[in-house]
Amino acid sequence: MSLNTFGHLFRITTWGESHGPAIGATVDGCPPGVPLEAAMLQRWLDRRRPGQSRYTTQRREADEVEILSGVYEGQTTGTPIQLLIRNTDQRSKDYGDIAGKFRPGHADITYWLKYGIRDPRGGGRSSARETASRVAAGGVAREVLKALVPGLKITGYMVQMGPHEIDRARFDWEEISRNPFWAPDAAAAADWAVYLDGLRKAGSSVGAVVEVTISGAPPGLGAPVYGKLDADLAAAMMSINAVKGVEIGEGMAAARLTGEANADEIRMGANGPEFGSNHAGGILGGISTGQDIVVRFAVKPTSSILTPRKTVTRSGENTEIVTKGRHDPCVGIRAVPVGEAMAACVILDHLLLHRAQVGEGPRGRIG
Amino acid sequence: MSLNTFGHLFRITTWGESHGPAIGATVDGCPPGVPLEAAMLQRWLDRRRPGQSRYTTQRREADEVEILSGVYEGQTTGTPIQLLIRNTDQRSKDYGDIAGKFRPGHADITYWLKYGIRDPRGGGRSSARETASRVAAGGVAREVLKALVPGLKITGYMVQMGPHEIDRARFDWEEISRNPFWAPDAAAAADWAVYLDGLRKAGSSVGAVVEVTISGAPPGLGAPVYGKLDADLAAAMMSINAVKGVEIGEGMAAARLTGEANADEIRMGANGPEFGSNHAGGILGGISTGQDIVVRFAVKPTSSILTPRKTVTRSGENTEIVTKGRHDPCVGIRAVPVGEAMAACVILDHLLLHRAQVGEGPRGRIG
Amino acid sequence: MSLNTFGHLFRITTWGESHGPAIGATVDGCPPGVPLEAAMLQRWLDRRRPGQSRYTTQRREADEVEILSGVYEGQTTGTPIQLLIRNTDQRSKDYGDIAGKFRPGHADITYWLKYGIRDPRGGGRSSARETASRVAAGGVAREVLKALVPGLKITGYMVQMGPHEIDRARFDWEEISRNPFWAPDAAAAADWAVYLDGLRKAGSSVGAVVEVTISGAPPGLGAPVYGKLDADLAAAMMSINAVKGVEIGEGMAAARLTGEANADEIRMGANGPEFGSNHAGGILGGISTGQDIVVRFAVKPTSSILTPRKTVTRSGENTEIVTKGRHDPCVGIRAVPVGEAMAACVILDHLLLHRAQVGEGPRGRIG
Amino acid sequence: MSLNTFGHLFRITTWGESHGPAIGATVDGCPPGVPLEAAMLQRWLDRRRPGQSRYTTQRREADEVEILSGVYEGQTTGTPIQLLIRNTDQRSKDYGDIAGKFRPGHADITYWLKYGIRDPRGGGRSSARETASRVAAGGVAREVLKALVPGLKITGYMVQMGPHEIDRARFDWEEISRNPFWAPDAAAAADWAVYLDGLRKAGSSVGAVVEVTISGAPPGLGAPVYGKLDADLAAAMMSINAVKGVEIGEGMAAARLTGEANADEIRMGANGPEFGSNHAGGILGGISTGQDIVVRFAVKPTSSILTPRKTVTRSGENTEIVTKGRHDPCVGIRAVPVGEAMAACVILDHLLLHRAQVGEGPRGRIG
Repeated sequence: MSLNTFGHLFRITTWGESHGPAIGATVDGCPPGVPLEAAMLQRWLDRRRPGQSRYTTQRREADEVEILSGVYEGQTTGTPIQLLIRNTDQRSKDYGDIAGKFRPGHADITYWLKYGIRDPRGGGRSSARETASRVAAGGVAREVLKALVPGLKITGYMVQMGPHEIDRARFDWEEISRNPFWAPDAAAAADWAVYLDGLRKAGSSVGAVVEVTISGAPPGLGAPVYGKLDADLAAAMMSINAVKGVEIGEGMAAARLTGEANADEIRMGANGPEFGSNHAGGILGGISTGQDIVVRFAVKPTSSILTPRKTVTRSGENTEIVTKGRHDPCVGIRAVPVGEAMAACVILDHLLLHRAQVGEGPRGRIG
Repeated sequence: MSLNTFGHLFRITTWGESHGPAIGATVDGCPPGVPLEAAMLQRWLDRRRPGQSRYTTQRREADEVEILSGVYEGQTTGTPIQLLIRNTDQRSKDYGDIAGKFRPGHADITYWLKYGIRDPRGGGRSSARETASRVAAGGVAREVLKALVPGLKITGYMVQMGPHEIDRARFDWEEISRNPFWAPDAAAAADWAVYLDGLRKAGSSVGAVVEVTISGAPPGLGAPVYGKLDADLAAAMMSINAVKGVEIGEGMAAARLTGEANADEIRMGANGPEFGSNHAGGILGGISTGQDIVVRFAVKPTSSILTPRKTVTRSGENTEIVTKGRHDPCVGIRAVPVGEAMAACVILDHLLLHRAQVGEGPRGRIG
Repeated sequence: MSLNTFGHLFRITTWGESHGPAIGATVDGCPPGVPLEAAMLQRWLDRRRPGQSRYTTQRREADEVEILSGVYEGQTTGTPIQLLIRNTDQRSKDYGDIAGKFRPGHADITYWLKYGIRDPRGGGRSSARETASRVAAGGVAREVLKALVPGLKITGYMVQMGPHEIDRARFDWEEISRNPFWAPDAAAAADWAVYLDGLRKAGSSVGAVVEVTISGAPPGLGAPVYGKLDADLAAAMMSINAVKGVEIGEGMAAARLTGEANADEIRMGANGPEFGSNHAGGILGGISTGQDIVVRFAVKPTSSILTPRKTVTRSGENTEIVTKGRHDPCVGIRAVPVGEAMAACVILDHLLLHRAQVGEGPRGRIG
Repeated sequence: MSLNTFGHLFRITTWGESHGPAIGATVDGCPPGVPLEAAMLQRWLDRRRPGQSRYTTQRREADEVEILSGVYEGQTTGTPIQLLIRNTDQRSKDYGDIAGKFRPGHADITYWLKYGIRDPRGGGRSSARETASRVAAGGVAREVLKALVPGLKITGYMVQMGPHEIDRARFDWEEISRNPFWAPDAAAAADWAVYLDGLRKAGSSVGAVVEVTISGAPPGLGAPVYGKLDADLAAAMMSINAVKGVEIGEGMAAARLTGEANADEIRMGANGPEFGSNHAGGILGGISTGQDIVVRFAVKPTSSILTPRKTVTRSGENTEIVTKGRHDPCVGIRAVPVGEAMAACVILDHLLLHRAQVGEGPRGRIG
């Protein structure tokens, strides 16, 4: 998990800058014999693609993924899969002001300080564009999971935009794909639409909370104590642009609970132990329980806004900056498929790790 | 960062079970020529050691660390440092009930499901006792940091116990070491004492939030995009027992902010750029800005409580469980030095990673 | 160093099949600010390119490398560098016979057994074509080395073809680039030309020994005991197609020496200690001494020959096979730049590892 | 495979200096449920232990291994296994001369140059004593292999001492354990005894070649192209003290062969394909064929000899050195169990890697 590679055994290395010729992902460690075609990955990329509603950046990228290696006659061969996505809409003139100034809240300044050089066009490597590569690679992970754990399902959705949370009592899985915010609550989605229109017109931006639920994962995934499933999920989500917090199950709210309230009591069910609640978010001691795995992350507002902010130039003069470009008023929206993709990579990785150390399936039996 | 090893270049591998002969940490990648003696590590272990106040488990462990290798005439040699801590107080009879039943909210059940075998004495590998090894290893990291970045300071403290938060207006760095809760707010500490006494007498437990501030870290630490400083901090903290959430800077609250509110504006100061606020928690794009690095994590309540909870036996019968043993009513207290230790390991690791790729210090200059 | 990635900090991941659309290398961990253009890499690729003399395969590949990321305005940015080489000459009809039969001595059979699927066109992933990616990535390493250790020089050459060795008494560095075999002995090169013509016309093939000398490397590179410089060099060379043996300094012949004969005696010179001989090949205890680092490897003959060999079909029938295609009578020739490239990667990797742990330059002084 | 850790999934980290309190190995990634007791490891350590015949160093170490973690009620639990070996015979006075001078051919000088500090007692970390930890860890790997691949057998033996090779026509597996040299040729063993007595009395030393054969390994182990089975075997063997060359199958002699001679022809046998020869040493394209895996390595003579050699002091004065101590006239003898141990680690590691990516057993079928 060093530098630009994520994963222990199912390893993705993403590469490319926002305004270079292309971006992509090198996927290594993929099991052989899994059906794979570009269209299977395109499906997920299309969910992340900008310019699909007025709530995301109007940059128009085709985001077409090509598979350059690792697949033969429609099946993975077990060798590295190179996924390439060409950059087609690179209006770098929009970014003229950024080259010499630093956007407050943006990685401009830290890239510059660290490396002493950076590609300023569209954020270069720090652009959210990098997440397209993750979505493509996550699509590979999904296809492998489909082959190995047929019932497994990974679903991301937004549970909060700015200060506005969904009402869990109205939670509806079917609703998620019906609104442009991936909200599981139709009423919240309607409110958000109005709220975000206001922000967008004001050239402002706002944060969000995204939740990803993984259902159907077998118990036993994860490895104590530094390869914990939740530690890897936390790293995965925190590595996404603009993420500032990660929670598993109760998350930060677990601090408020007593031991009695937090205990997920257990009873025998028809097919093994069943839990009366899921405060744990499906993970105990870093290992999956078989319940839904629930991970949540907060995305900060994009730093590209129309209101002037104080900053400095590279030569050290005080100035102000306004970011015109074409930006997302709420990048959290497009973070939903990215969170799903990262979750898919982590789950598959731990499935392979478990198979390596223990063999197929959990080794312990209850009852 | 696989299984029981943490870190890219400064790597710690912890080993040992709660009730085996010893636990410890194998520290690899340590720079040579750093003054190191057991007493330097003991200092931090003593902070984590149980039985120091009535608010922590009454298990009495000497927690004396021995350095078995990697040090010659009081200096590190650059070879692996083996840190050994003998287990001295192993009343395993306390744990009789646990061998056959699973504690709700505890890793008992997942270790069993995954491996089909586990050391049930005191939680075995999943015991919070493992964190003593981290504190010892973190002590090594601290000594190296002292040599490499003299001004750097890592301070952990509790900011919330159960529903009770500190008042940031009363924040006092000096207060932290004066109360048994590492609280930076004397009034909160007084309240917590009463609150926790009640819980302790009732055989209950409660969660907490711990914050760690790293001041004096140079800008430029961290590596896009999967070796981000915050991604590694998130993994580090989430790997600590009972942690369910991790935040950087604003954390989950970043979701509520607009771009205007979230921007940490920049002005030139005497020694380079200065920031008007620190919503970012000292990290932008996964790379340190030079501001204080602020990470926060939530610790759930320990699952070992006196109130009976529903559970099942290994053979699949419904039953109830009460955990007598000697347990912490608020494990968050002892998580404070653990969080500091993990922070030290991450910062040192990234300091070495930066030195490898870029050389000494940040490469970019402003002004 | 797992699966398709090589290196600890300077990491190359190669991808692609012989007859897919492209092959390439993802280079991660490159220092920033190093001048880099495609032409600098092309120079080395041109040395490896087939079809340049009658002694290598007549397959005609342009082997033009494109840099898709990680470089801005002619300098590395510290982000991943994607190197892409399109496959242009893919006469896959030549390989019809290979799809259903296994070539004795070739990876056909093991890829099939392991994965149950393989791309049979031109050997797919096991083709020597993969080494073009290594040469491109090694070219990046060379440019970084040029910036970090100006005097360092990496030179590969053939010292044996079939049973015919060079005469070390005639060793001439200048001669290496003058003959098509990279032989440092003009007389040997002349003999080899006649010898290889005979083999080529007979549709046969033969093995070779390649030596790589790294001069000007500082002392102190390498890390005990599993990250030894020689262990990494051994892995690097053994990972090249068709390599069956690796030697450092005296190599296998060290077994014949007594302690007296093997000792490289030391005397103080003008600039520090000097060695009277170099049986060690520049490495002691896995760490460089400052002398020339000398690594040697044996390449077996290609298994693609015109004389029929007994084999079996995928369905298990006994049969014979003749490989027509266009093949190298002595693949060792084209292994020379590949060995150089791998050496460059290893040296740079250890330079970065050393800088991480110890800082710039050796820490110990003599005199 | 960085610094002091070896392996991808079955990972061993050795630690400790020759004359510190103890040495040991931290073994991570071990499958659960494997019967394991110290006696099972002791068996192999006893083979490596010095002082057993007049042909090895007279240093007397009990080399008793203790298992400190990872085993419960005689079975591995899947958590890290800490193996501890106390140093009991530490006559460090023997080494007085070495602290200030550098032994030609020894790691003294490179450790000093790299780190600027080293434990000079008995070679410190560079002592062959480190290999005891490998043998213990390899013992764990052997027990796991016994459980997973019952028919697999790993046998090491010496095939050359100084210039004296065994006669392959007299190869006898039974003979190996009957003589103090692990020679498979009784006549050679008798000759070597006389030869080595002469060297020993003269205070000299000599090199050797060790071969390790792994029979019963399934086809399909190994992973292109940098995780090749032979690349990992090469790194494993080259990481052993004093090793200067590694060969697979024909090894360096493969350079002399034509394609016709090198081809291991294939015929269908009762249980699948059979090979008419084994020039490949059981590995093609980095993946095992199912034949015997044959790896060979050359051990240089120990640099500790009684004849004075020219060297320098730390302060840069020319001088001479004689190493009195108690040393092995032919360290190759004790390298035999070490080579076996490393082979066991590599094979198990790749068995787990294969199981992770592909599942149990080879996926492809022939016939």
